[in-house]
Amino acid sequence: MTTEHDDGDARLTEQVVASFASTPDARLRTLMQSLVRHIHAFVRETEPTEAEWMSAIRFLTETGKMCDDVVRQEFILLSDTLGVSMLVDAINHRFATGATDTTVFGPFYIKGMPERAYGENMAFTPGTPVIVRGQVRTTDGTPIVNAVLDVWQTAENGMYSGQDTGQPHGNLRGRYRTDAEGRYAITTILPVSYPIPTDGPVGRMLNATGRHPWRPAHLHFMIEAPGHRTLVTHLFDKDDKYLESDAVFGVKPSLLVAYRERPAGDELARRFNLDGPYREANYDFVLDRS
Amino acid sequence: MTTEHDDGDARLTEQVVASFASTPDARLRTLMQSLVRHIHAFVRETEPTEAEWMSAIRFLTETGKMCDDVVRQEFILLSDTLGVSMLVDAINHRFATGATDTTVFGPFYIKGMPERAYGENMAFTPGTPVIVRGQVRTTDGTPIVNAVLDVWQTAENGMYSGQDTGQPHGNLRGRYRTDAEGRYAITTILPVSYPIPTDGPVGRMLNATGRHPWRPAHLHFMIEAPGHRTLVTHLFDKDDKYLESDAVFGVKPSLLVAYRERPAGDELARRFNLDGPYREANYDFVLDRS
Repeated sequence: MTTEHDDGDARLTEQVVASFASTPDARLRTLMQSLVRHIHAFVRETEPTEAEWMSAIRFLTETGKMCDDVVRQEFILLSDTLGVSMLVDAINHRFATGATDTTVFGPFYIKGMPERAYGENMAFTPGTPVIVRGQVRTTDGTPIVNAVLDVWQTAENGMYSGQDTGQPHGNLRGRYRTDAEGRYAITTILPVSYPIPTDGPVGRMLNATGRHPWRPAHLHFMIEAPGHRTLVTHLFDKDDKYLESDAVFGVKPSLLVAYRERPAGDELARRFNLDGPYREANYDFVLDRS
Repeated sequence: MTTEHDDGDARLTEQVVASFASTPDARLRTLMQSLVRHIHAFVRETEPTEAEWMSAIRFLTETGKMCDDVVRQEFILLSDTLGVSMLVDAINHRFATGATDTTVFGPFYIKGMPERAYGENMAFTPGTPVIVRGQVRTTDGTPIVNAVLDVWQTAENGMYSGQDTGQPHGNLRGRYRTDAEGRYAITTILPVSYPIPTDGPVGRMLNATGRHPWRPAHLHFMIEAPGHRTLVTHLFDKDDKYLESDAVFGVKPSLLVAYRERPAGDELARRFNLDGPYREANYDFVLDRS
């Protein structure tokens, strides 16, 4: 490589950047011009062969084709496994307000899942019974009444309903509301660690790079309340073996919870109709005012 | 933004880079780690909102879904319109050997098009008749006998056969061979400037950024000969009004040709069965030895 070539490449980059100079929307102009400079910098640094570039084109094409309109979003998986989703998350939640930490949304959320009563069981497939309870508060400590907690998790086979068509509709999904004291209660099963889908381009990427596809066990939450910023987060099992190597880099220490063992038939078990020995987890969520 | 946040973001980037440390293939490791650093740099610089990031996810998904197995390759169009294809081209053809300049391959090539005789007409749709002639040589000047020139261009409606199912099979496509003196001759029609497809995500991107989708008129060539590097290039009409603003940044001064006007019925017209007034272009191609 000579200086002459570097100059030629840099001229091309600036020519492309200049082609976006008339973008009417200033924000879009900034995004496109920055994107061009960074992609070109990547290409200049790594000098891909034409065959490598075609492999990238094919990879991206197959990633798009792997997506469906329900729960398979391979580009979110790609963004997740490259740590980009967590970076966007960090950038959008920079300020230490006392609100609960956020983490990746992931590709498996489904809108419009059943409304569930306080403490209702959302598990229609087997597992260790769990009661998850706590309060939703605003940053000044005020309980939030009637906040909606949209919850989702995998079955013991590591699959989400929707993704796994064998599961009943709404299995391990549901919308809970806080009561007059801002309290919520969810009966479900103990979440398990599970691999992200490996039958697509992202799985091939992980395999080719010697990375495992496992996520530590977690419950997903999206919590909405009028006048507050929507909170998207997980609760991770503090004893999971994948906490240090989450395939999507989503773990934050503040989001670990203990699923404590409880004996069969105690008062809590009777209150929430839990059969046999079970687990209990407690977690309070704090939302920012919007 | 505070230093603390910058540090946190940088730690995330390095955590993702480290996750690729065990990639068995050293080249893949280099590519993935560089990709992560550059994508993260783009995200840190532009600080996309979560809504902007989801727009990017949707854009990439739709780009993948727009691709078919025949001639529509929206990710190549995206690479082309961001100048990335030309940068990869430049990187892979850095050395001034005397060989003909290369340019983008584009998404419209189709394999296995008809073999055509010396001077055969490949146009089955109307247009200004053209004869394109010249020689294929190696860099030391030796004519290359039996080189294969795979040629493709649009019809006057700006569409390629395959892309436009209304055109006859093989229209404005064909594989020509050089004769015993390394000469080739192609009868066709005058190429026209045309817009790249605008009915997909790339078209929406061009529209949103105030860019036009036009490419200056050109003939595509892929020239293969045993013992030589395959040459992928275009011949552009030197009088085209889009030479300075090619939507895919593919123009190089060395690839301009004149389509000179010739009178009806002259000796050349009689030799190649050209009806009425026609044009003539001459261009010699030079291939590197492999």
